[in-house]
Amino acid sequence: MARWQPGAPQRLVVAAVDLFTEQGYDATTVAQIAERAGVTKSTFFRYFSDKRELLVAGQETLSRLLADGITEAPADAKPLEAVAAGLERASSAMGPANRELGPRLKAAVAASTELQERDALKSVGLAAAMTAALVARGVPDPTAHLAGELGVLAFKRGYAQWCDGERDEADGLAPYVLSALEDLRAATASLG
Amino acid sequence: MARWQPGAPQRLVVAAVDLFTEQGYDATTVAQIAERAGVTKSTFFRYFSDKRELLVAGQETLSRLLADGITEAPADAKPLEAVAAGLERASSAMGPANRELGPRLKAAVAASTELQERDALKSVGLAAAMTAALVARGVPDPTAHLAGELGVLAFKRGYAQWCDGERDEADGLAPYVLSALEDLRAATASLG
Repeated sequence: MARWQPGAPQRLVVAAVDLFTEQGYDATTVAQIAERAGVTKSTFFRYFSDKRELLVAGQETLSRLLADGITEAPADAKPLEAVAAGLERASSAMGPANRELGPRLKAAVAASTELQERDALKSVGLAAAMTAALVARGVPDPTAHLAGELGVLAFKRGYAQWCDGERDEADGLAPYVLSALEDLRAATASLG
Repeated sequence: MARWQPGAPQRLVVAAVDLFTEQGYDATTVAQIAERAGVTKSTFFRYFSDKRELLVAGQETLSRLLADGITEAPADAKPLEAVAAGLERASSAMGPANRELGPRLKAAVAASTELQERDALKSVGLAAAMTAALVARGVPDPTAHLAGELGVLAFKRGYAQWCDGERDEADGLAPYVLSALEDLRAATASLG
């Protein structure tokens, strides 16, 4: 099962979010983040192009897992069943460290327009990855586009509920995300 | 019928998009944009906080029109009928100048990550405005959230089709956006 690397990148993310929370995003430098994480600046730049990228660490991994799950879903899976398979695959990459980080990350993003913009573009990227994987399965437009957007909504809503919920170490992200997807699917019936 | 102001802000947007297309976003300065539009730099800063804001000119107006249309829809309107009323209201603010600008704007955004981020956050803002207006009508979550996201998808898809389509001066944006919304509504039936 894929997991976030527990090495330097993860330490850098934790150090950055701590510093953003303590002293604000603008006042935090790459040098401070590297020092807090116990690595050199050049190690920082091996993993991230700048401090903003830290907050979307894992976007490429997530996109790949979402797309792989969709691609490898059974041939007769309906669009949202394939999306559920992608979400399950991606959720498996999110462990206790991600859950711990969630609320602090949310606070840092809420306090910075720049981070909100980067975060919004991340969602666009995840939706695009799912939409492309659905199109490759033969799902027509706009169903593929719609299903990809529902997938992102479900991931974000489930992740927020996971971070807000009771802490139970054994409790993975997947059930939250799949439940959010089911809620959204059910809601399509009351759109009118 | 609300229209974009044909004065300094509109001229600044046209000048900026022309310069972004001619010489790139990064190489374009506020001074150049003001000069091309025939206004002073201080006039520029009366309307926009920086050059990036130019490309999302009208976001607040759009959000207000979307929300107003939803709020004022008949009390018995279903969620997507209220969204359609909001989209119709917002579409009425988009005239030939917006249609003319669309493809050049798209090219400028495609060439700049910074602009893509700002554009993505704009979509988040429009969806939030629609969702809030639906919640105020008593539409429960997650139906309101879903309907707001469908509204943004419809607006973006309809706008792209309007800009790509045959130029007919009498041809407004609204039919394109409402048709895109209907396509998305129909697609919910094939999600599985």
